[in-house]
Amino acid sequence: MEAFSDGVFSIAATLLVLDIALHPPGTPFEQLRNAWPAYLGYVVSFLTIGAAWLAHSAMSDRLKGADSLLLRINLLLLLVIAVLPFPTKLVAEALQDVNGERVFVTLYGLTLMTIRLLGFALDSYARHEKLYESGPSDEELQAERRDIWPTVAAYVIAILIGLALPTLAVALYFALAVFLVTPFRDLRLMLRRS
Amino acid sequence: MEAFSDGVFSIAATLLVLDIALHPPGTPFEQLRNAWPAYLGYVVSFLTIGAAWLAHSAMSDRLKGADSLLLRINLLLLLVIAVLPFPTKLVAEALQDVNGERVFVTLYGLTLMTIRLLGFALDSYARHEKLYESGPSDEELQAERRDIWPTVAAYVIAILIGLALPTLAVALYFALAVFLVTPFRDLRLMLRRS
Amino acid sequence: MEAFSDGVFSIAATLLVLDIALHPPGTPFEQLRNAWPAYLGYVVSFLTIGAAWLAHSAMSDRLKGADSLLLRINLLLLLVIAVLPFPTKLVAEALQDVNGERVFVTLYGLTLMTIRLLGFALDSYARHEKLYESGPSDEELQAERRDIWPTVAAYVIAILIGLALPTLAVALYFALAVFLVTPFRDLRLMLRRS
Amino acid sequence: MEAFSDGVFSIAATLLVLDIALHPPGTPFEQLRNAWPAYLGYVVSFLTIGAAWLAHSAMSDRLKGADSLLLRINLLLLLVIAVLPFPTKLVAEALQDVNGERVFVTLYGLTLMTIRLLGFALDSYARHEKLYESGPSDEELQAERRDIWPTVAAYVIAILIGLALPTLAVALYFALAVFLVTPFRDLRLMLRRS
Repeated sequence: MEAFSDGVFSIAATLLVLDIALHPPGTPFEQLRNAWPAYLGYVVSFLTIGAAWLAHSAMSDRLKGADSLLLRINLLLLLVIAVLPFPTKLVAEALQDVNGERVFVTLYGLTLMTIRLLGFALDSYARHEKLYESGPSDEELQAERRDIWPTVAAYVIAILIGLALPTLAVALYFALAVFLVTPFRDLRLMLRRS
Repeated sequence: MEAFSDGVFSIAATLLVLDIALHPPGTPFEQLRNAWPAYLGYVVSFLTIGAAWLAHSAMSDRLKGADSLLLRINLLLLLVIAVLPFPTKLVAEALQDVNGERVFVTLYGLTLMTIRLLGFALDSYARHEKLYESGPSDEELQAERRDIWPTVAAYVIAILIGLALPTLAVALYFALAVFLVTPFRDLRLMLRRS
Repeated sequence: MEAFSDGVFSIAATLLVLDIALHPPGTPFEQLRNAWPAYLGYVVSFLTIGAAWLAHSAMSDRLKGADSLLLRINLLLLLVIAVLPFPTKLVAEALQDVNGERVFVTLYGLTLMTIRLLGFALDSYARHEKLYESGPSDEELQAERRDIWPTVAAYVIAILIGLALPTLAVALYFALAVFLVTPFRDLRLMLRRS
Repeated sequence: MEAFSDGVFSIAATLLVLDIALHPPGTPFEQLRNAWPAYLGYVVSFLTIGAAWLAHSAMSDRLKGADSLLLRINLLLLLVIAVLPFPTKLVAEALQDVNGERVFVTLYGLTLMTIRLLGFALDSYARHEKLYESGPSDEELQAERRDIWPTVAAYVIAILIGLALPTLAVALYFALAVFLVTPFRDLRLMLRRS
């Protein structure tokens, strides 16, 4: 399960770069500056994939085995991960023009939220079916988990805000991706230690 | 054999996203709606690759070793897996225009059927040459297998239907991909258990 | 060394599909038929990468360790493997128009020959520096090897022929790729056995 | 950590080929010749990724474990590695036209320098947190390291030169990439031995 999954995660993350392009006219500097939505989309999607991968990888390390249903939930997660470059591209273009911003930003938010929910489904199923080894790494896995409902609520709020203020919504997706990727527990331990 | 194979499977699956594009004119919402054949093609091809990978991965786990001919049959399978984004793109465009639907849908069906047949050839060869370990995982491998001839017959029928009704044929390819990816045995066990 | 190498091999092989495209005008069937040089280029390049990977993989399995120079020769080989989609695309276009066929076909042949020579350099260096384990798999590694100079001579001849008859040259590259990927020793053993 | 990282490294390196394209008009030979900036950009970026991967891989082999902060620094490094095809494309186009050369060459240099700095940060953090095993491979890891500040100074100088002479700056980036990828210690050992 891991080689194929790691493959899809890393390829989807790397294909995001193909969505970054400059749009003439303008001086080179202006073109670079005007492409900021493409950079923002790249970073948000890359971090979202990164966060999903960190959680996925902590999970995989702890799995005793994978039953056939887990493999299918995983396949569904990968299907959404692999499609992410498409809404990312739409958002990058949406924030550059004013047309159609809302629809594309909403689609993007829904895709990000789906990734979060499928990651949670995978983890929940594995816990429910007792597919995890128990042991000292329990705590680590716990650390990679974030409470699911607050983040889903945050996505819903950001999506609703996006209907009025699409750029703000993308900024919120960015904040959420940074939140998901931040190792709070370890930073706290580190601060306490020093 | 596995790293290269897993690589090709995951890259081909992820490259499919590059085939999804919106075609102006139209409001953003209309453009998104009109691109449904691209989504359908993406999902059918992703699930077909996913099903082939699940079977391939169950096989690889059980192989004692790979002889040189097995490696070549595998290479041929990968050659067809890797080409799949091309007919997928043609189908996505074919269902959007009316021109040329039939030829492209037929080509797509033939490609999907070839993947099925080469996967079967790989498994048959490994069985014939006794390259599998026997053991408790026999049953698992069996579970990932589906009878080959009914599915090939289904592909042939879908391809023939596609000559008259191309959209229906793609719907049938979708149904077949879902069928191939569904873990019937385990779902049955699960139902019995509960 | 292997994960990165397998990655480059499988990605380069899979990216080749992006070089396949139809060129209007024409009926769908005509467009598909006229794209034959793209299919030919895809198959030749895929098989050449496949052959290089089979040899590379047989090598890697036998390496006791990799010294820093071996890693650099390997990097050079990967640099050429990864560039292959570019001349492949040129050849596919070259055989469709008549313009510029010769230059592009020559470049393609030189790239294929360079892959062959760098694979040989890698193997020779590993042998010279005694980086291989000796053992029962000696024979297997030997089986994946082909005499280098006959194949290089064949490439040189094909390249020279390409200056006059570019399509014939690509046919010869195809024959060479098939030759490199054919497991003669094992086919012979198989025939003797039966 | 390694599978995902190796994935991003190898995919980013292989996607660079998509940045190589010929620009009509001109004879085929002229078009090939005029695309030299694309080849230069490909080689510089491929070698820079190659050097970063060699160092990364020597590091990973020695890690006892990865703490959560190391994984995040790694993710940041991969984010920059994965974006490299974008500035590479800009540089290839920049050296072909005269417009905008400076801005794009500067951006390219900054990206290469950032890769160097993040690779150093990763290694420094691992050393500071004592995440490395000690042992006989110490020397090997040391050999893959280069003093950081001289190379950063060289990047800064090259970037400044690029403001006046962009083509020279790219030549310097090439020299730096070759320097980073050259195994000086082992070449010296080899010379002494012979």
